[in-house]
Amino acid sequence: MPRLRLALGQSNPTVGDLRGNAEQVLAAAREAHAAGADLLALGEMALTGYPIEDLASRPSFLAAATRAVGELATRLDAEGLGELVVIVGHPDGPHAPRELGTSNAPTAIAQNVASVLHRGEVVARYAKHHLPNYSVFDEYRVFIPGDELLVLRIRDIDVALIVCEDLWRDGGPVGRVLEADAGLLVVINASPFERDKDEVRLPLVTRRAVETDTVVAYVNIVGGQDDLVFDGDSVVVDGSGTILARAPQFREHLLVVDVDAEAATDTPLPPAVARVAIASAASAAPDLPALPRDVAELPDDREQIWTALVTGVRDYVEKNGFRSVILGLSGGIDSAVCAAIAADALGADRVHGVSMPSRWSSDHSRSDADDLAERLGLQYSVEPIADLVAPVETQLALDGVAAENLQARIRAIILMGLSNMHGHLVLTTGNKTELAVGYSTIYGDSVGGFAPIKDVPKTLVWELARWRNEHAGSRGETPPIPENSIAKPPSAELRPGQVDQDSLPPYELLDAVLEAYITRHLGKDDIVGLGYDHDLVHRITGLVDRAEWKRRQGAIGPKISGMAFGRDRRLPITYRPTE
Amino acid sequence: MPRLRLALGQSNPTVGDLRGNAEQVLAAAREAHAAGADLLALGEMALTGYPIEDLASRPSFLAAATRAVGELATRLDAEGLGELVVIVGHPDGPHAPRELGTSNAPTAIAQNVASVLHRGEVVARYAKHHLPNYSVFDEYRVFIPGDELLVLRIRDIDVALIVCEDLWRDGGPVGRVLEADAGLLVVINASPFERDKDEVRLPLVTRRAVETDTVVAYVNIVGGQDDLVFDGDSVVVDGSGTILARAPQFREHLLVVDVDAEAATDTPLPPAVARVAIASAASAAPDLPALPRDVAELPDDREQIWTALVTGVRDYVEKNGFRSVILGLSGGIDSAVCAAIAADALGADRVHGVSMPSRWSSDHSRSDADDLAERLGLQYSVEPIADLVAPVETQLALDGVAAENLQARIRAIILMGLSNMHGHLVLTTGNKTELAVGYSTIYGDSVGGFAPIKDVPKTLVWELARWRNEHAGSRGETPPIPENSIAKPPSAELRPGQVDQDSLPPYELLDAVLEAYITRHLGKDDIVGLGYDHDLVHRITGLVDRAEWKRRQGAIGPKISGMAFGRDRRLPITYRPTE
Repeated sequence: MPRLRLALGQSNPTVGDLRGNAEQVLAAAREAHAAGADLLALGEMALTGYPIEDLASRPSFLAAATRAVGELATRLDAEGLGELVVIVGHPDGPHAPRELGTSNAPTAIAQNVASVLHRGEVVARYAKHHLPNYSVFDEYRVFIPGDELLVLRIRDIDVALIVCEDLWRDGGPVGRVLEADAGLLVVINASPFERDKDEVRLPLVTRRAVETDTVVAYVNIVGGQDDLVFDGDSVVVDGSGTILARAPQFREHLLVVDVDAEAATDTPLPPAVARVAIASAASAAPDLPALPRDVAELPDDREQIWTALVTGVRDYVEKNGFRSVILGLSGGIDSAVCAAIAADALGADRVHGVSMPSRWSSDHSRSDADDLAERLGLQYSVEPIADLVAPVETQLALDGVAAENLQARIRAIILMGLSNMHGHLVLTTGNKTELAVGYSTIYGDSVGGFAPIKDVPKTLVWELARWRNEHAGSRGETPPIPENSIAKPPSAELRPGQVDQDSLPPYELLDAVLEAYITRHLGKDDIVGLGYDHDLVHRITGLVDRAEWKRRQGAIGPKISGMAFGRDRRLPITYRPTE
Repeated sequence: MPRLRLALGQSNPTVGDLRGNAEQVLAAAREAHAAGADLLALGEMALTGYPIEDLASRPSFLAAATRAVGELATRLDAEGLGELVVIVGHPDGPHAPRELGTSNAPTAIAQNVASVLHRGEVVARYAKHHLPNYSVFDEYRVFIPGDELLVLRIRDIDVALIVCEDLWRDGGPVGRVLEADAGLLVVINASPFERDKDEVRLPLVTRRAVETDTVVAYVNIVGGQDDLVFDGDSVVVDGSGTILARAPQFREHLLVVDVDAEAATDTPLPPAVARVAIASAASAAPDLPALPRDVAELPDDREQIWTALVTGVRDYVEKNGFRSVILGLSGGIDSAVCAAIAADALGADRVHGVSMPSRWSSDHSRSDADDLAERLGLQYSVEPIADLVAPVETQLALDGVAAENLQARIRAIILMGLSNMHGHLVLTTGNKTELAVGYSTIYGDSVGGFAPIKDVPKTLVWELARWRNEHAGSRGETPPIPENSIAKPPSAELRPGQVDQDSLPPYELLDAVLEAYITRHLGKDDIVGLGYDHDLVHRITGLVDRAEWKRRQGAIGPKISGMAFGRDRRLPITYRPTE
């Protein structure tokens, strides 16, 4: 049985950064070559980053990507890496545009491809067949589908090549892999993290390995790109369903594994399959010492989510060139968790916390913020707001909710002023539950460029806080989050004695109804049918519907759920629900 | 030659408002019946509003729409309108979901259909074949395509029926109309206004009438829905290319026209065509007096745009239940034009203007705002900001841009405070040029729920102001916009003597480069190739790229161009351009 040494490169590309992304490919190729690999595969769009959205319809962008892939092939060869077969994803075009209805709209002119680089040339290319156009994905908008499976014959093994969504759908190229009698199926991916996604992704890879009777090698990118966090978790599974290798989540990593596969045969190819023979120099793999088993363990759910949030914050900050972040510290749980995430992402010296007590602030709001700042070692300052609020309140004669919102907006002015003076990115600390029901002040506590916990429901915020403290405890470190911030009843403290539960149902109940309405897409009657109170359900769903305009103006933040606010959930602002 | 009296109903639906939208259909049916019509067609999704976005994937919403169409048929019959054949658009489902890759995403389970109502029943149904998934449209995301053309035999005329995009594409159902030997082709639409779209839409309708040798009846909805404004402009064109009737833009209207068409034959039907015979009572049409010719003239370009903006503001306000709007009046051209649009939309008594002079404000900023308020008859107040700015500036030691932004943010606090106290919708007055290059203060002058001129470049803002004044003059009314606001050099007045051209290229030049980069989707080198200075092009495109995060948090506003900011143009925030 022939053997092939395969390397999967989990790189962390930045959208548009063709030079930087190509350097990542080169670094992976050097490492793969040093490890004796015959074949290196990187993720979907690893050369341009993912998703490129409407950049796919800009001809100059496509031309630059085409140049970059040619230069990459040349550089690999020039560095003595030309024998290594390298598979890398990028957009390809312009092709003849798909016919569209109106004259002005930019057209889909690109394909989402995997190029195969060898001896300084692009020797083959596969175009993605199935274009996801649901959830956060708009691929049918910007790409033209391919229609042919590619099989590479490398060192007497037939290696089938597909891209991401192609693995998920029963029809199309994956259906032809068995018939083409391939020994290895390489799938390059840009598959964002979602809570519990590993519970569908690994079983899928395993099922396809068994169905197609191949070794399936699944390689995914890592890192944050706007609201998405790619988690890597690249994996190789053989035709019996055994995991041969698995890369750690969220980290750049080169996974190297020896693949033993049936020798290629001269079976006639089924229709819509192209086969390209790649004359490969003798592989070092059979003669090299056996590789150590590289199978990462998946951490538990809460740690996965925490790491996704940390990755999302770190990459938004680094890829956009910020040196530091700033956030308001209220002494409450949301800002405490955001500060801890930011400190884990960037180091505490790059995180500036500001306590902004008002005349209604409790003593503990100040002392809990002090405690948090000390535990984390943040840059920390205190800016009382009373003297800034009073002149506005008096001049405009504000009271009630208007006066409450004013306090939040004065705090926003402080954070934005300090941001403008010092270049900090402002983090906004709202959680998913608040965003859902509009329990926030627009242009107040909602201000900021990035929202670390925007996809984290309040009940999960508490869970994550407890996990992070336990995690610190288990490593002999100081738990970062003050116990009192976790234990005390949540309050916006915009009027004397206020607590969240004056205005909102208990969070356990609220989050359960929101999950039904938002994630499960149920109607009001369906939710009542689950056993929730009729008026409560109508009140909550009404709040959700009416807060759409606020959400539309909110900062982006990392998606961790099956249904995040943002492009994952597209609903009108102007909407009179009657059902 | 048989004759059919056809009515096209330009209704103004609100998304989700099934009862209100059904009332509009009933009102049109009563009027059509009174006019002796045999057939009434309303627009695409006239029963639910358009676009419904992801509501199409909520089963309870689909169930409610299905109930509503049944009830509508029943009510038409109960009111003695059952002989009138009524065509109305709505989403239909749930159907078996289209296969998707991941388990959590809501699936496309609906079709975008036209139902045919007669004698209290839904007697036939056509499902849209071509699903636009470009520009602002996401139909492939939420709909499953149909695959069969519908032909209704009514009073010995074969009436083919399709939906919107189906008319634009060469393949599919429109290609079968000629072969099916239809006499009339009814197209129901939800086609949003775009500047110069009438220059492609009418020629298309004409071309299809000639190609298919039918009378083409094109009916479109009217009114604003979030960022879209539907302009109606329903039209009937015969097989020789002659316009038989045309409805006015932007207004609810019932267009009634007699259609003489070839008698139906028993030509065998081509594949993928269904024919449904509708037993219709004897038509009154042949015996009624001839209808007056109803062919509206299209107003000139600037008036069309102005009316689109007025419609967008009015419908956002009315459909979302606001009683009044508030906006800051700087004495400049942008706020003057927004105030005039709002006054045209709502009446001046529902428009509140606030002058918010600072220590740097010129005398004319105040006097021009006074003048505008008086010309329009606005609700008007003055709130000086110096005493509100000073305490923040001092406490935080802000200077430079941070101090400039502070002034804009204090103004935002004033507008939002008054909004919270009195329930006004805040209008934000930024134009497209500012949004493009980020020449605005986020959480400052950008605050508000609706942005009347967000798709209007600065040079067009001036043009519209001049047009509006001339228009008033030609009707013997006071020109609403102070001449000085049009003539003076634009300035943010955030520091002494500041004018926009300190920071920005001349607006004529800036708008030309932005048009190339944004609307025409050209790369930097292409734009330089048009003859613009290299450094200027790189500076402008760099500003555009870096302002994406601000635009993402901006208010929605009416689309009038071929490429508006918002869902029309989807680009990453995190983006390192190298091309």
